[in-house]
Amino acid sequence: MLTLYHCVSARSFRALWMLEELQLPYILKMLPFPPRVAARDYLAVNPLGTVPALLDGALRMTESAAICQYLAARAAPGTLDVAAGEPAYGEYLNWLHFGEASLTFPQTLVLRYGRFEPEARRQPQVAEDYRRWFLARLRGVDAVVARQETLCAQRFTAADVSVGYALMLAELIGLEPEFSDPVRAYWQRLQQREAYLRALAAQEKSAIEQGVSPLPATVTGVPA
Amino acid sequence: MLTLYHCVSARSFRALWMLEELQLPYILKMLPFPPRVAARDYLAVNPLGTVPALLDGALRMTESAAICQYLAARAAPGTLDVAAGEPAYGEYLNWLHFGEASLTFPQTLVLRYGRFEPEARRQPQVAEDYRRWFLARLRGVDAVVARQETLCAQRFTAADVSVGYALMLAELIGLEPEFSDPVRAYWQRLQQREAYLRALAAQEKSAIEQGVSPLPATVTGVPA
Repeated sequence: MLTLYHCVSARSFRALWMLEELQLPYILKMLPFPPRVAARDYLAVNPLGTVPALLDGALRMTESAAICQYLAARAAPGTLDVAAGEPAYGEYLNWLHFGEASLTFPQTLVLRYGRFEPEARRQPQVAEDYRRWFLARLRGVDAVVARQETLCAQRFTAADVSVGYALMLAELIGLEPEFSDPVRAYWQRLQQREAYLRALAAQEKSAIEQGVSPLPATVTGVPA
Repeated sequence: MLTLYHCVSARSFRALWMLEELQLPYILKMLPFPPRVAARDYLAVNPLGTVPALLDGALRMTESAAICQYLAARAAPGTLDVAAGEPAYGEYLNWLHFGEASLTFPQTLVLRYGRFEPEARRQPQVAEDYRRWFLARLRGVDAVVARQETLCAQRFTAADVSVGYALMLAELIGLEPEFSDPVRAYWQRLQQREAYLRALAAQEKSAIEQGVSPLPATVTGVPA
């Protein structure tokens, strides 16, 4: 049985979305954000204190885009995964990494220095630098989704989950009005997927059942 | 023929190191740093202006850790690559992503706000926040390399190139004295690899031949 440690709408949402795409059985453990501070027991599961943590037997994975590729390769070869022998393999890997390293990390700076830090430590310049940085990198998505439904391989893959989560986070922090029309349309297509909707429902239900706020930290803020 | 666009000791070093590990033929195009500003023609190759760009026929890849996995899977299945059927596959993917998203991105903030920005835009607090962030994440490497020679699969893989480059960058920006003993010993083992040494020699030779400074931007700084 797979166990996923998750905070509402954090990066770990990628793993949750993939589990729903694959219709795998899983246990969902909801944590308050940031777990490093707000759920100290979690350090026994993941000493880094970050989410996600996915447990699969003795394996523990902590990188959300890697989890997407792992689950797809193990549970859905040839559909949500792109195999090394397929022509689109290089593009697939590139988008998996691009979604996190190029599109998500910059947004964490916008959040940290624009909202999460106490007033005295906020850095509007840094938040603005990385808002621009994110929007510049997002242009790499425009031309591709203007001419095709998904990022690569002419089908929906784990790469769309990786990049799709970056768009979800962008909407949560108010950057959606700056999306180009093709990116906005792509993000709307992704949000219509049944698995995406099931993942949203699953995190809300589990949060309430487990006594965690069902709102994302982008709305609630973080404890001082 | 593979073509790699590279700046001395930038992230694109991962791809160069992999090419040397695999002993593949390649063309190395050296660029001044940052290419977005210092080599405007490069925007025709990669509109994002970032390095690396790896061209393989019609394929263009821009994410250094993805390039490592791509080259390994295509050219060295079962050795530098870890296949989806191997027990270490999940760990392998996790380290590939961890090397970039968790260990390299934070260092770019240390560099940017500690050294590269003009004096008036420097942010010592941000540089310090992400120095600590990097060192905290690096603890995830300690226990593993204390008990084994490489990160996973009981052999040297592309994952070691991904994490190894993060250690190279850390040394360039002066964080090496804060490595734990196991991490320092691991980094010393990596630096003894012939392919690593060939990659260092190749970038120096090509830089001089192509009229680009053979010193990394961590030493030369960036144009104002």
